[in-house]
Amino acid sequence: MRVIGLDPGLRLTGWGVIEVEGCRLRHVANGTLRSDATRDLAQRLVQLKDGMEAVLRDFLPDEAAVEETLANKNPASTLKLGMARGVALLVPALLGLPVTQYLPMIVKKSVVGTGHAKKEQVAMMMQHLLPGAVNLSPDAADALAVAVCHAHNLSTRRSWLAGREDPLIGGRDVR
Amino acid sequence: MRVIGLDPGLRLTGWGVIEVEGCRLRHVANGTLRSDATRDLAQRLVQLKDGMEAVLRDFLPDEAAVEETLANKNPASTLKLGMARGVALLVPALLGLPVTQYLPMIVKKSVVGTGHAKKEQVAMMMQHLLPGAVNLSPDAADALAVAVCHAHNLSTRRSWLAGREDPLIGGRDVR
Repeated sequence: MRVIGLDPGLRLTGWGVIEVEGCRLRHVANGTLRSDATRDLAQRLVQLKDGMEAVLRDFLPDEAAVEETLANKNPASTLKLGMARGVALLVPALLGLPVTQYLPMIVKKSVVGTGHAKKEQVAMMMQHLLPGAVNLSPDAADALAVAVCHAHNLSTRRSWLAGREDPLIGGRDVR
Repeated sequence: MRVIGLDPGLRLTGWGVIEVEGCRLRHVANGTLRSDATRDLAQRLVQLKDGMEAVLRDFLPDEAAVEETLANKNPASTLKLGMARGVALLVPALLGLPVTQYLPMIVKKSVVGTGHAKKEQVAMMMQHLLPGAVNLSPDAADALAVAVCHAHNLSTRRSWLAGREDPLIGGRDVR
């Protein structure tokens, strides 16, 4: 199964696609989408939508996982983050993919083992877990981490459904 | 020329379409789009997108005007508002329409004459200015008001370009 992780932001949106086979994970591709800050807001959202759509069509993931970054202290930035997150939830849903959101703390706990891991630790762990993922941008590393977190969550759910263990990592329902 | 006004919100998004002929305004249609709060967030954004797309295809406006409601005190609500506003900016832009945002104060000043007008005053003024607009929901009244504000702004711009007067009502560029 293929999972795409998205770390949405109006200026930069990270994305990362992994292949999940049971407990084995394989890096497929990653990158960063940029919107042109000199364009108007509506056009920047169109750029993000077009970029995400192209990635989804190129790599055909089966499920999407989106980082649920907490609101910023600056309300104007929170509005912009909301717009970018809205596009990141909307575009995969329009193509029929299930979309799950994960809080950054849950992602860090899942991939590094502690909810307070630093950005560099997350990037290092991604390069360790996914050998093909080199020269990662911070946003692409975060996006791959969300995808890995979703893969862990899926496998934990499967184990739980099979009655073997309790689910340790909780994905937030997107409500 | 046809203008659609949008008052975006995740739960309720008001819309209103008017016909602008020189200084004359005519009501075409209005309504409220609802997203189902029991669905997940991605699906609610899909519902808003589908609803807006249907309205745009039914009434074929030439330009869109979106109310730029200020951020809420509650960061979680601000994020949701950002998502709904993102969809309201994205959908008309995807269909090639120019999109302008207006602050609520500018809309009220334009349609009632004071930036501190109450919601009921805006609704009453809409029914006065646009005789066909009856039984307006609060969100549809606000959406029609944004459309009327855009029409005023366009005619002021035209007069200004013709060297007759200074622009009094400023539309915010969507950046």
